This record gives sequence, C-alpha cells and structure tokens, in this order.
Amino acid sequence: MKILVTGGVRSGKSRFAQERAEALASERVYLATGQAFDAEMADRIRRHQAERGPSWRTIEAPVDVEAHLSAGPVVLLDCLTLWLNNLMYTQGIEGGSEDGALLPRFDQLAAAVAASPSHVVLVTNEVGWGIVPMNPLARRFRDNAGWLAQRMATVCDEVHLCVAGLPLRVK
Amino acid sequence: MKILVTGGVRSGKSRFAQERAEALASERVYLATGQAFDAEMADRIRRHQAERGPSWRTIEAPVDVEAHLSAGPVVLLDCLTLWLNNLMYTQGIEGGSEDGALLPRFDQLAAAVAASPSHVVLVTNEVGWGIVPMNPLARRFRDNAGWLAQRMATVCDEVHLCVAGLPLRVK
Amino acid sequence: MKILVTGGVRSGKSRFAQERAEALASERVYLATGQAFDAEMADRIRRHQAERGPSWRTIEAPVDVEAHLSAGPVVLLDCLTLWLNNLMYTQGIEGGSEDGALLPRFDQLAAAVAASPSHVVLVTNEVGWGIVPMNPLARRFRDNAGWLAQRMATVCDEVHLCVAGLPLRVK
Repeated sequence: MKILVTGGVRSGKSRFAQERAEALASERVYLATGQAFDAEMADRIRRHQAERGPSWRTIEAPVDVEAHLSAGPVVLLDCLTLWLNNLMYTQGIEGGSEDGALLPRFDQLAAAVAASPSHVVLVTNEVGWGIVPMNPLARRFRDNAGWLAQRMATVCDEVHLCVAGLPLRVK
Repeated sequence: MKILVTGGVRSGKSRFAQERAEALASERVYLATGQAFDAEMADRIRRHQAERGPSWRTIEAPVDVEAHLSAGPVVLLDCLTLWLNNLMYTQGIEGGSEDGALLPRFDQLAAAVAASPSHVVLVTNEVGWGIVPMNPLARRFRDNAGWLAQRMATVCDEVHLCVAGLPLRVK
Repeated sequence: MKILVTGGVRSGKSRFAQERAEALASERVYLATGQAFDAEMADRIRRHQAERGPSWRTIEAPVDVEAHLSAGPVVLLDCLTLWLNNLMYTQGIEGGSEDGALLPRFDQLAAAVAASPSHVVLVTNEVGWGIVPMNPLARRFRDNAGWLAQRMATVCDEVHLCVAGLPLRVK
C-alpha cells in the first residue's frame, strides 16, 4: 500500500499519516527529512518525536530517501516538501535555473516508492494556493512542490487531502 | 447542531454559514469578531451587515466570545481567524513566544461551543496553503489558525470546505 | 456543457481541463489569456502549447474573451485569473479603488458563458488560501479572484477542484 497525504500547514497531515501507517504494520520507520537548522525547527522535530512515541524508529535522510524506503514493514516519509527544499538547496537550484530540471529526480523517487516491498506513506504540503510570490525561488519551489505531489500521486493507491484535521479522499 | 465552515478568502463561507444558520432557527445572533481598525475593514463590516438584513441581531465580541455562545437559538461566529488575531494582539503574543501556548485557550472555546444549548455555526479561514511566510508572527498565526480549526472540528457535527461558493462536506 | 476547473498552482488543472475539453469535441479552441511579458512567462506559454499539440487552435485574448466563446465546438479559457490580472491592469484598478467595482464585469462574462452555444471549459486559480498579503493590490486581486470563481460556478454544470493532479468534484 502506497499512500500520499497532503494539505495545508497544521491540517492534521502528520497525525493522519501516522495513524494510517500504524494501522498497516507494528514495526514502523519514520523517515525524517527535517533538519534542525534553527531553534524553531528543533522545537518542531522534538514535538513530533514525542508525539510518535517509542514504537517508531527514526532515520534521518534529508536528501537520499530512496535508500531507506524498505527499512521496515511500513515507512513514513515526512515530508516531501522538506525533501524538495533540501534537494534544491544542495543542488544549488536558483530562481533562474531551468524549469522542470527536477522532474527526472521526481520520476526516480516515484519509481523507488512504487518498487518498495514496504508500505510507504508520504506526507506533503500544499503551498501553491496563495498569491504568486515576488521571489523567483519561491515560485520555483511551489512549481516543483506541485509537480512532485502530482508525480507521487500517480504511484499511490490512496491520496488524502487534510482539512481541519479531517482527511478528504481524493484518490 | 454545531457546524464549522472553512475555506479560502471570498469562497462563499460567510454566505453558506448564514444560510445554514437561517435554516436552523428564525431568531439569529451574529457574533462579530471583526473590528473596524481601518476604512477597508469598516467597508467589509458594513457590506456584511447589509447582506444579512434586519432579521439578525449583532453582538460585537472581539475576544470574549464564550459569553455570547447561547445568546439566541442560533449563534453564528464570523470568524475564528479574526478572533485569533484579536487574541494574539491583546495577549501580546509575538513570533518568538512559546509554541502551542494558545492551545489551552482553544480547548476552552471548544468546550464552550460543545456545552452551548444553542446551535452554533463557526466560520474560519484557510491561511496555511501558501509558501512559508518570512515573518515569524505570520508563521505563528497560521500554525495557530490550523490548530484552532482542528480543535473546533472535533466538537462539530458538520465541517464544510467552501470552494468557488460551493460547500464540500468534510465531516 | 460548461465546466469550471480550479486548484492551486501545478495541481494539474490545465491538463484535466484539456482532457475534459478533448472528450467534448474534436475541434478545439484554446483561448489564451496569458501574455509573454517576460522570459519566464514565454517559457510557460511555449510548454503549454507543445503539450496541447496541433489539434488545438489558439486565440489570444487577454481581456475581450467574450468575442471568442463560440469560436469552436469546445472553447477552453485558460485562465480566468490571468484574465482578471489583465483586466485590473488595463482598467488601472488599484488597491484603493472601490470594492466590488468589477462585479458587473464578472456578471457580463458569466452571462456570455451561459449564452454560448459551445461547450466552455474555464480554468481558474485558487489564490486566497494563504496569509493576508501586505500589499493592498494583492488583497484586491484575491478578493476579485474569489468572487469571479463564485460567479462562474453559478453558470457551470460541473466544478472540479484539482489536488495533486486529481480532480475533486465540487459541483
């Protein structure tokens, strides 16, 4: 089973994804893409770990997530937009770089998800429902985030949109 | 009956919430959280009052909304995000303040809504579907708005997401 | 058949709208509201044309779209938010201008869509699900975009919200 969970910030995505993952297997791997660059981020990481509890094994993988997609019976990758952020940062992608340059990389991740023998639950963020940002890099980021979610949805059995803590089944 | 109506700006939330409220009782209370800080806001308040018509009694309650949740057979609180804004402003909450500090206050409001013998219709705004804002206070605001909507959804019988003037039932 | 397709950026709106249009008739007109003001926009226009292929006839109509709503058995207008942008620009609408000033213009477009003997597919963008923008013109734009989508939805037989490339039926 491959599942994509999306939604706005604080919409209950991570909790719902965790519940779905816990229903799929008792041994669980949390694939963390978040890095504690500052105190705000460190706080969030600590809170999320405390909420998951000790039944979860955490693997930190800011960019090379494919290596860990079969690390347990169920793998929860939280979240794709942070992975995208890390990818754009490490590759030095800037606002003026070629449009669609990351699409082959998204195909690679989608193929790895599809090929994994594990259950995989992916969390992503909706970031393109606002006014067009002034910053070219922000525009590039939301373009990529949208393409990435579309690509992952094609290899998932279920897609859920979270609103006010409630999942809305999209696929 | 407790109902939460959410959606983006100008998505028809207030009109749908008003229609649902009018179907629930003939004596109606409009609990206004908006304050006319500037001409733009004053315009919006006047337009909304004109749209509701004279069958509604208006009570202005920027922060202490709990006192009025049983002020009539049906109470429409429009909107939770303005209430949150007023709350953060009066409490002097700033970007660096403790994460989750307002959660007990949200629990208090949720309990008051659940305990009210009246029908209660709550309107809120989706504000977390864009690029992460640069401003720490804006990030804190959208975190709180998301948590608040989740909390209210747990005590509501119905949750609707408005899109292009049309309600999508989420709960 | 009149259809409105909405969603965030890179949510698969244009592709889904194109597929719906192609299912409705074999001769297709693409009503392009986009203008190549800069290299980024020119790139997007070229990519979209290449994706549609040669079975589509393209008419460029930045503002006066009504003249072309019956130009073929099926007309795809992509997109309403660019049309709105062009309209606000050509009319010199600024942040301080009267609220709701464009509503009669939206009524005119809605009436023209309803009256067209052709199938019409309209694409719009959700832009009001983020933090309130600092810029008054941006606030005015998202108010208008919301009102415009609501108005068009009333004359459409179907309304779809795209998420991660998947359509969610709203009407």
